[in-house]
Amino acid sequence: MKSYRKELFYEIPTRRAFVNITEDVEVCLRESGIREGLCLVNAMHITASVFINDDESGLHHDYEVWLERLAPHEPVSQYRHNGFEDNADAHMKRQVMGREVVVAVTEGRLDFGTWERIFYGEFDGRRRKRVLVKIIGE
Amino acid sequence: MKSYRKELFYEIPTRRAFVNITEDVEVCLRESGIREGLCLVNAMHITASVFINDDESGLHHDYEVWLERLAPHEPVSQYRHNGFEDNADAHMKRQVMGREVVVAVTEGRLDFGTWERIFYGEFDGRRRKRVLVKIIGE
Amino acid sequence: MKSYRKELFYEIPTRRAFVNITEDVEVCLRESGIREGLCLVNAMHITASVFINDDESGLHHDYEVWLERLAPHEPVSQYRHNGFEDNADAHMKRQVMGREVVVAVTEGRLDFGTWERIFYGEFDGRRRKRVLVKIIGE
Repeated sequence: MKSYRKELFYEIPTRRAFVNITEDVEVCLRESGIREGLCLVNAMHITASVFINDDESGLHHDYEVWLERLAPHEPVSQYRHNGFEDNADAHMKRQVMGREVVVAVTEGRLDFGTWERIFYGEFDGRRRKRVLVKIIGE
Repeated sequence: MKSYRKELFYEIPTRRAFVNITEDVEVCLRESGIREGLCLVNAMHITASVFINDDESGLHHDYEVWLERLAPHEPVSQYRHNGFEDNADAHMKRQVMGREVVVAVTEGRLDFGTWERIFYGEFDGRRRKRVLVKIIGE
Repeated sequence: MKSYRKELFYEIPTRRAFVNITEDVEVCLRESGIREGLCLVNAMHITASVFINDDESGLHHDYEVWLERLAPHEPVSQYRHNGFEDNADAHMKRQVMGREVVVAVTEGRLDFGTWERIFYGEFDGRRRKRVLVKIIGE
């Protein structure tokens, strides 16, 4: 069994954004030399997500509006977590969108459906944050 | 290390439904010959889910009502994604229910709790869609 | 390839609670002797979650309030699932928080970001319930 590990770094200039990181993960997979196995991609921060969905700007706008409705950022005083911080809503949005994805690796490629793309979902940005890629297989 | 891959196909006649696919995954596991490892089951479409919960029709009705409350299908004009499509809500419902499950394989079986069953959750049906099963182990 | 399996048991005296189980999983990883691989941790019950977030009591209070808003326990009669049971809301809360986490194992350790901790999320407690730890690798 082979294993491969890499950290990817993202510094988002806004509080919230969705970034297509599929190509960065594909570079990792090529570096790994793994042809058959599983690829884990996870946010290393608890106010961010890694998820798979569509690379369509209208949808990303809809996600932003929807997540703000489910877990509004303001008023920040509505959350006990917000003593010294103001990011409680980010911890909730991240649970809806998820921490991680596990993607099959088949014949050296991410084994995706037609429209599947990997996104980094930032909910408390404006600082450098990390995504972990771990691939195991042969 | 062994690896196994199969696509399962589902064509749901309605827009939304939950289908128990546990037996289909068990057939895959037997075909794979893998006794110890991990089994990934994921929707290959971004308007569908694979999740684990109870095979109880009352609960599935409750999920339908609840997901419609969290991310209503109508009015379709409330979502920017719905220019040429009308399925923005399906992309949201899928995030709540999840894209994938990873199930332990132990002694050649899906290593489940008493009531765990695998479901395909369709949120934009009426066409043929795919689920990926990837198993690695020995 | 090595594989390791263990069930962890939790009996929560209240209906709902969040319990940090990171150390229990670390004990499993040491017992496994696995240095590189993947560690799956999942609830074996469909009214409970395993998730990764912050070990901060204010945030856990915020999660409790938020999940009750998204999927209220009462009135129990609002859910069809609640014929003989009263836990339909627990099946919903569990979907928001997730069934499982997959954690990278690197150099014999859970490969975590600074604040990542593993939690058992109980939504229908007051009985003994199980969490599965399955680790594969080398």
